[in-house]
Amino acid sequence: MKVTVVKNVLDANNRIADDNRKLFDGHKMFVINLMSSPGAGKTSLVERTITALRDKYGIAVIEGDIQDTFDADRIAKLGIPVVQINTGGACHIDGNMIRETFPSFDFSKIDLLIVENVGNLVCPAEFKVGENIKVMLLSTPEGADKPAKYPLMFQESSALLINKMDLMAYVDFDLEKARRDSLALNKDLNIFEVSCKTGAGLDAWVAWLDRQIDAFKK
Amino acid sequence: MKVTVVKNVLDANNRIADDNRKLFDGHKMFVINLMSSPGAGKTSLVERTITALRDKYGIAVIEGDIQDTFDADRIAKLGIPVVQINTGGACHIDGNMIRETFPSFDFSKIDLLIVENVGNLVCPAEFKVGENIKVMLLSTPEGADKPAKYPLMFQESSALLINKMDLMAYVDFDLEKARRDSLALNKDLNIFEVSCKTGAGLDAWVAWLDRQIDAFKK
Repeated sequence: MKVTVVKNVLDANNRIADDNRKLFDGHKMFVINLMSSPGAGKTSLVERTITALRDKYGIAVIEGDIQDTFDADRIAKLGIPVVQINTGGACHIDGNMIRETFPSFDFSKIDLLIVENVGNLVCPAEFKVGENIKVMLLSTPEGADKPAKYPLMFQESSALLINKMDLMAYVDFDLEKARRDSLALNKDLNIFEVSCKTGAGLDAWVAWLDRQIDAFKK
Repeated sequence: MKVTVVKNVLDANNRIADDNRKLFDGHKMFVINLMSSPGAGKTSLVERTITALRDKYGIAVIEGDIQDTFDADRIAKLGIPVVQINTGGACHIDGNMIRETFPSFDFSKIDLLIVENVGNLVCPAEFKVGENIKVMLLSTPEGADKPAKYPLMFQESSALLINKMDLMAYVDFDLEKARRDSLALNKDLNIFEVSCKTGAGLDAWVAWLDRQIDAFKK
């Protein structure tokens, strides 16, 4: 009996993610893979984005957490279709986990699917889920050395939201260094300075995202 | 030819970590595995702890980062032996990486070895490095939902430092919930409320750590 070993877990995941992508394309669904450190403000950004775009687009959310449904409960309160993935210890969402959520959604009603990944600045950047774009948050209390220390996520993302700008007066965050080091890793990165708490700066993010979805749907 | 597959990466790592532990025991070295999300204040805590205990103990540091030597450079400025591990993408330090640093140290001069892990609230908790104790930081801007969402690290740690207490007035951090949920996961967890920026609360941490090292060396 022949034993076939999948040597490269990433290759296998890429194949599944590509299949997901084709399925999403068939339904004209724009998909965001949203990533950050724990507590950087992903769920707050999802809530703000839903509120801003729900009149224009059908929106659905996949919440990725090691355990619990706290974030999914927050999204469900907005009346938006949401499915919780509990990874049971795994540090990222992969293409297969996304596949398992499909029976829970009505794809014909979804224009924008937001996948909120597990809070982790390292592993999620390596695993595609079938997204159009990766979007990441960096919060000001984390410090401006993060692009240099965790480069892959900055390289892979189309947009970087620098969140918790409302804390700038109380933390030592070198905004210019963060911008400079991020762009050095990825010159095409779209950077938005925001506060998901106060709402400041989110209009520019929403307008940019709206343009990406519009362009994709055409 | 027979092919042996190590089915359980964690088992393999545990064996190496146990070997490290025996070696450390032989030299009466107390070893801390220090973990947290990115930007929670690990390096600042290492600096503060060195300053407080360097007159009493020989201290050395291993810095774990995906790339760069920023944190090791900070420790080197204090005149403390430090070795940088660059994981090259890996999301945690393992026992083998620790082994590779051994030729760089003079064990006869080390009473306390602090291993600063990669910033990640998930994976490092699964991989022993040969430590006596795991210590973790949770910073107030990350939010009080972290014990419930990332339970393993709270379960595995002997001490939890709630850092950035100086930001309490500006963030929505439910301190009582964080304490309660942490202790529900691990009733033996020693919790310290600190600010590595101002120094507040660190005396209690240092006194506790001093007692652990003393007890180990006897």
